[in-house]
Amino acid sequence: MNITQGLHRHIQQRPHATVIRSMGRSITFAELGQRVARLAGALVQLGLAQGDCIAMLSRNSHRYIEYALGVPWAGGVLNPVNTRWSHAEILYSLNDSATTILIVDDTFKEAGAAIARQSETIRHVIYAGDGDTPEGMLSYEALLAAAEPVQDVRRSGDDLLGIFYTGGTTGFPKGVMISYNNLAYASLTSLAKGFLSRDAVFLHAMPMFHLADFSAMYGLLVTGGVHVVLPAFTGTTALEAIALEQVTELMLAPTMIQMMLDAREADPELGKIRFDGIRNIIYGASPISSTLLDHACEAFPSARFFQGYGMTELTTGGTMLDAEYHCKEHHLSGKMYSAGRAVSCVELRIVDTDGNEVPRGTVGEIVVRGPNVMLGYLNQPDMTAAVLRDGWMHTGDGAYMDKDGFVYIVDRLKDMIVSGGENVYSAEVESAMSSHPAVALCAVIGIPSEKWGEAVHAVVVLKAGMSASEDEIVQHCRGLIAGYKCPRSVEFRPALPLSSVGKLLKNELREPYWKGRSRGVA
Amino acid sequence: MNITQGLHRHIQQRPHATVIRSMGRSITFAELGQRVARLAGALVQLGLAQGDCIAMLSRNSHRYIEYALGVPWAGGVLNPVNTRWSHAEILYSLNDSATTILIVDDTFKEAGAAIARQSETIRHVIYAGDGDTPEGMLSYEALLAAAEPVQDVRRSGDDLLGIFYTGGTTGFPKGVMISYNNLAYASLTSLAKGFLSRDAVFLHAMPMFHLADFSAMYGLLVTGGVHVVLPAFTGTTALEAIALEQVTELMLAPTMIQMMLDAREADPELGKIRFDGIRNIIYGASPISSTLLDHACEAFPSARFFQGYGMTELTTGGTMLDAEYHCKEHHLSGKMYSAGRAVSCVELRIVDTDGNEVPRGTVGEIVVRGPNVMLGYLNQPDMTAAVLRDGWMHTGDGAYMDKDGFVYIVDRLKDMIVSGGENVYSAEVESAMSSHPAVALCAVIGIPSEKWGEAVHAVVVLKAGMSASEDEIVQHCRGLIAGYKCPRSVEFRPALPLSSVGKLLKNELREPYWKGRSRGVA
Repeated sequence: MNITQGLHRHIQQRPHATVIRSMGRSITFAELGQRVARLAGALVQLGLAQGDCIAMLSRNSHRYIEYALGVPWAGGVLNPVNTRWSHAEILYSLNDSATTILIVDDTFKEAGAAIARQSETIRHVIYAGDGDTPEGMLSYEALLAAAEPVQDVRRSGDDLLGIFYTGGTTGFPKGVMISYNNLAYASLTSLAKGFLSRDAVFLHAMPMFHLADFSAMYGLLVTGGVHVVLPAFTGTTALEAIALEQVTELMLAPTMIQMMLDAREADPELGKIRFDGIRNIIYGASPISSTLLDHACEAFPSARFFQGYGMTELTTGGTMLDAEYHCKEHHLSGKMYSAGRAVSCVELRIVDTDGNEVPRGTVGEIVVRGPNVMLGYLNQPDMTAAVLRDGWMHTGDGAYMDKDGFVYIVDRLKDMIVSGGENVYSAEVESAMSSHPAVALCAVIGIPSEKWGEAVHAVVVLKAGMSASEDEIVQHCRGLIAGYKCPRSVEFRPALPLSSVGKLLKNELREPYWKGRSRGVA
Repeated sequence: MNITQGLHRHIQQRPHATVIRSMGRSITFAELGQRVARLAGALVQLGLAQGDCIAMLSRNSHRYIEYALGVPWAGGVLNPVNTRWSHAEILYSLNDSATTILIVDDTFKEAGAAIARQSETIRHVIYAGDGDTPEGMLSYEALLAAAEPVQDVRRSGDDLLGIFYTGGTTGFPKGVMISYNNLAYASLTSLAKGFLSRDAVFLHAMPMFHLADFSAMYGLLVTGGVHVVLPAFTGTTALEAIALEQVTELMLAPTMIQMMLDAREADPELGKIRFDGIRNIIYGASPISSTLLDHACEAFPSARFFQGYGMTELTTGGTMLDAEYHCKEHHLSGKMYSAGRAVSCVELRIVDTDGNEVPRGTVGEIVVRGPNVMLGYLNQPDMTAAVLRDGWMHTGDGAYMDKDGFVYIVDRLKDMIVSGGENVYSAEVESAMSSHPAVALCAVIGIPSEKWGEAVHAVVVLKAGMSASEDEIVQHCRGLIAGYKCPRSVEFRPALPLSSVGKLLKNELREPYWKGRSRGVA
């Protein structure tokens, strides 16, 4: 299967049906097919050779979907750039993948120009915006207008689809090589859950460079549903798009759900709208609190909630917590706080450091095997060999499994704190701290300690208008968890650093403490 | 993905849930896992080398499912034998695939012994029955009891899963090589339609050696539904199993649906049962008549009907006519008589003899491209090259496509009659003849003619208690279709030859007429 197959099929079956709605513009399958074939033609004219990497640095747009289809159509390899990275990180990824063409939008045209000047491999920068084309760049629309459409080369199977760089927040990013098979299996597995059917209207709320959104894009192209493009997520823009476009499916981080609920509360007009057309909300990156879930169920009464756990190396698919576990019964059973069970294209185990499966209830590392496991890290055979062993992807995530196969993620192994020879799981400490009435958000990290090796350190965001002292919070924890797990120090901040998909960036919190030292974990 | 993956996952998540119900026996995932690992161990002890072919000649049974899992678990390749074939055909397929071990049940133990004696490659015959083990054979159950379970070698991806011989009714069969990817894509595509969910109870009504049933078996192992095994299909045994086991999903040929309706009418006890737990009935091999559909909808009021068109070379997946087209509106629009549209893992085109797409409404050959297209025919590079061209499987089926992408199968190209230089599609003539009130079944073939090259010949089965003359039938046709399409001769018979899946065997009808001559088509 190749990524363009769904497009071919829907052009054949219903060329005049709408496939994309973006900023008031509607695009049909036939139009998309024309634009994709012309983009591919333009890339070939610009000298694209089979297997060349083409990068895109852009907010979500209909042109992002054209890029996702047009580059493989021409025989190229995708390199969707994380827009949150520093110039140095982006430059590293462009050089590492020998990317020859960079496509930028209005938001990133200056950044793109600066990066391209420093790049060793970029030959062309294409401006895919709506204003005047900056000097030194080619106009995306002019290229399309002038190009001859070319035939789809139909790369497929284990061919390289794209390099999805990950981990940019810690050292330099790793280029995760994803094949057509990887993406197709991950997407079909989601479709088998009943997501993204032919009559679905999906909101691209997450950034398109992220493989989670990319996988949904692929699934939707298979079934022929409608892509609603949201260039920039806020609680308000998301709710407005859902109401206007009658969105049926969403993929969100819990923080994004919270932002939507906040926006609804803040705006009486939004508060009046009934959002009862939503069918499925898949959320990822972290479990949902029962309070947030209750509020979300009230705001979106028709929605079924699903939690996904995964990572780029798994083409995002690891476990899923099904809708039926989002209820009072499984709040009590605790299953609602698990990450669910292995998705249906993988095998998943919890293993010790020797790779042996541990007994149920014992914490170990999550390893996953399946057709969605990446080909490897680009140019990093050692790093690849370290995580891909006997076909099993070693995720670096610590978890235990219950008797029914539900996976409870305890911690990133690298977030585990070793203090005085004891393992402290930051998630457990955070859970204790969260129950303090004044705590809005918190994060627990290990910081260097002469005495203990690492000491438990907490970063706390207080609720608006509430207060609590360091001592009060530590005492609160003492009532709930063992003394050695309680924070030795507490720091108050106005906010926590989050990634583009709402994941807490603990490395940023740790960095000032560990500058020039090694923690001994990757 | 490998075929054993679902088994591993469900052993992990719910070892004590039932996976198979067969002849009053229930088998759990844990028990199945134990038996499969022991079967694999026994095969390795018997000298199975990686890639060796293991054949099974048997009616449907729980041991057939163990075979389907145990052989790949041990590193072997499956060769499920069509039980309807002649000894010569079976022997050919065993020799062609260098099969080393043959597994037989009670029904086929004598046949198996005779074939093994003649085989060049069979080293062991395993008796997988419930009686005493015949001399010269090994006991399946004794082997399992004595064997040490071995580790699953987890063949997967483009590795060879099995040889599925096809076309045994015309000359010697061709060994269709199917990979793990082929089967996984075909199955996941069905799951994405909502078939075979986790709470499904599937009746294995079709023979398990047939890839259609095999693909359903795989899908069900992925989701974890229950396999109900029917050793021998009759209208009565099927209805009894549906009622007893609360079956939710079925795959049938239209003739099998007819047999079930007949059994229901004939038996007042069966007539009293309400079959309202059935969710999905997938039928294949031929379109359904509106009369049969009406009766079936009455008998199975909760069922959604789907038509599948495919072939072994496509791991059975080509097109599907969705449930919503099985209604009065699409009886009138004609779409109910189409084979539906391309399934969601393929691209499909109608092409001329040069491989160019023909205009909508024009008859040409169906070609299909996708991850479900076979690896090729075993030991037949020329035959493979003839049908697999530029990634497109040339099906040999004649069809046209309407503007919405619905495919109307006109004829097997080899069933098309060339009479006086005109193409006559047998399906069109059969459709005209079927509307005669006395005609129960009919088949139209080309027979040699000095004058016309081929002449249109009809074979008719009359309805019980009704009569019609040759002349009446020809006159009836003249009122509906062009003169050159009307039968030149009509032959009356008590029945038509059908394959094990209810497909009309036109070659058997043609054979006596063409003995020693060539029709000039494959």
